[in-house]
Amino acid sequence: MKLATYKDGSRDGQLVVVARDLSVAHYATGIAHRLQEVLDDWNFRSPQLQDLYDALNRARESGANTGTGLARHAFPFDPRQCMAPLPRACQWVNGSAYRNPQTRQGAASTATAPVLYQGASDDFLGPCDEVLCASEADGIDFEAEVAVITGDVRLGATPAQALDGIRLLLLANAISLRELMPAELAQGFGPVQSRPSTAFSPVAVTPDEVGASWAQGRLALTLQTSWNGRKVGLCEAGPEMRFHFGQLIAHLCKTRRLRAGCIIGSGAVSNLDTSHGYSCIADKRALETLLDGQPLTEFMKFGDTIRIEMKGRDGQSVFGAIEQEIVPLEKATAL
Amino acid sequence: MKLATYKDGSRDGQLVVVARDLSVAHYATGIAHRLQEVLDDWNFRSPQLQDLYDALNRARESGANTGTGLARHAFPFDPRQCMAPLPRACQWVNGSAYRNPQTRQGAASTATAPVLYQGASDDFLGPCDEVLCASEADGIDFEAEVAVITGDVRLGATPAQALDGIRLLLLANAISLRELMPAELAQGFGPVQSRPSTAFSPVAVTPDEVGASWAQGRLALTLQTSWNGRKVGLCEAGPEMRFHFGQLIAHLCKTRRLRAGCIIGSGAVSNLDTSHGYSCIADKRALETLLDGQPLTEFMKFGDTIRIEMKGRDGQSVFGAIEQEIVPLEKATAL
Repeated sequence: MKLATYKDGSRDGQLVVVARDLSVAHYATGIAHRLQEVLDDWNFRSPQLQDLYDALNRARESGANTGTGLARHAFPFDPRQCMAPLPRACQWVNGSAYRNPQTRQGAASTATAPVLYQGASDDFLGPCDEVLCASEADGIDFEAEVAVITGDVRLGATPAQALDGIRLLLLANAISLRELMPAELAQGFGPVQSRPSTAFSPVAVTPDEVGASWAQGRLALTLQTSWNGRKVGLCEAGPEMRFHFGQLIAHLCKTRRLRAGCIIGSGAVSNLDTSHGYSCIADKRALETLLDGQPLTEFMKFGDTIRIEMKGRDGQSVFGAIEQEIVPLEKATAL
Repeated sequence: MKLATYKDGSRDGQLVVVARDLSVAHYATGIAHRLQEVLDDWNFRSPQLQDLYDALNRARESGANTGTGLARHAFPFDPRQCMAPLPRACQWVNGSAYRNPQTRQGAASTATAPVLYQGASDDFLGPCDEVLCASEADGIDFEAEVAVITGDVRLGATPAQALDGIRLLLLANAISLRELMPAELAQGFGPVQSRPSTAFSPVAVTPDEVGASWAQGRLALTLQTSWNGRKVGLCEAGPEMRFHFGQLIAHLCKTRRLRAGCIIGSGAVSNLDTSHGYSCIADKRALETLLDGQPLTEFMKFGDTIRIEMKGRDGQSVFGAIEQEIVPLEKATAL
């Protein structure tokens, strides 16, 4: 099933179930108001959401413009009305699960354990929300990636057990301020200022929605990234993920358990074959530095747009598209 | 006022208001079920809690064994029934706001910006919960510190504006696995495995509870730390805090806003005068290394206990005590 969170003026929004083709949605009223409630009590609530989802899809397949029965209050789905599926969460951890240009020829490609950092989870952006930035000089970069939302995972879980704890898949734009990053990483304590709010796709989906494309903790589909309307990345998310999501989660669970509603990101999707393009500007610049001795591509400017989407084997958008614009702080329409 | 969260089998527990002397408590039913709800809507809900708190204290002062009027359903307060005041939160950021032995003689003491790391906030421990550890070889350490819980703080807030966003004060035990830390910090991305679940004091209090001891973003009281029943730290939390909480929060807010319910920690409280003892074993070991060329004090063992408390100028416990035992994973009474 496909789930989204509609803006309603509250901090956590309203849970909606979205038809498979993303055409219509239906409030989950009567089952749960918020996605976190569903994750807290997955075995009880998710079958009820599945019933509503099935009714919504049946109505679409039968050609009805509006739903019937369970899904009789369906309405056109508008990604611009979406918050992040979890507008705030109890944990956001981002990984670095792909080889990237820095490591194509380097020693780090032999890493035996994943690298992860804790990110901020108090204020996620919806898929079409503005990215507010104080200064272009901070090195504004997008970072297109795959993420998962977990249920509870026990301390000491194996990668296979960790995979069982994955409830939902989604896309993320882990916005980075690259010029602030070297100083923060040099201190050792990880990114803080250099990783502002992360944005997520309109819908999060259960793994069965992508069928065999979800296998062994990897999502074997193509991540499409367009920058200012120009396709810059058509990266394969599956085969080159060195550490799959079960391994990322098991790494976290070595010394503590995870509680329902944690979000784990893959890091920028990257392929060794550079003809696939890039999922973050930093990767492109690192490659340019390798080839030409210096980076040529500049980071994002105010007014730039970024679009991130992934299509299933049937050609339909799985998660809807992240579509954001970089906006200077003083032009913010809302704080 | 003083607020706590009672265990009730749910993930977020039940909000209770606790009398100033920590003797009795009262469910906040009818006002809010959970502390996060209060933080989300502080201006509306906190005055109602204050009324209940005042009634509870009046009943105590009048010598009544049980409350009357608003506070008629008061019951004896038991810290062992407490979860962390926020059992899970949307953000936990820990700082390093005191000079510590590593920096007593080093260049880092001239640092012009605070060092902070993002911690996990999905699974906090209550004040008397067991600390489950997989192995003594991980270098189990306590870390006694002061923390604050914020309301919303805007992007670009100054330190003074950030101070206005502080809603509650509390104590934390930011448990660390020191032997896992060097490798994680060397990668630059901050602690992940080396910082398991953090524990918090039984109650969180509004700043007015400590009167003039809370001034300019610092809490000028003595943090008492006892390890296996022996007092090892009587550290002054106020005067040597290089960066006050407003500065820590403003640092975070340089590139993003904070949303209600974020918890910010000071890092281990530490004094230049070593006669005050220590708030974490790592500081003691660093000092030993400076003096003797090697650390002498070993990290915690299974069965060790840690007690952290802070008394007001009236000699009464402000937050109640954190009292925890280190327990091997296989002896866990609950996972």
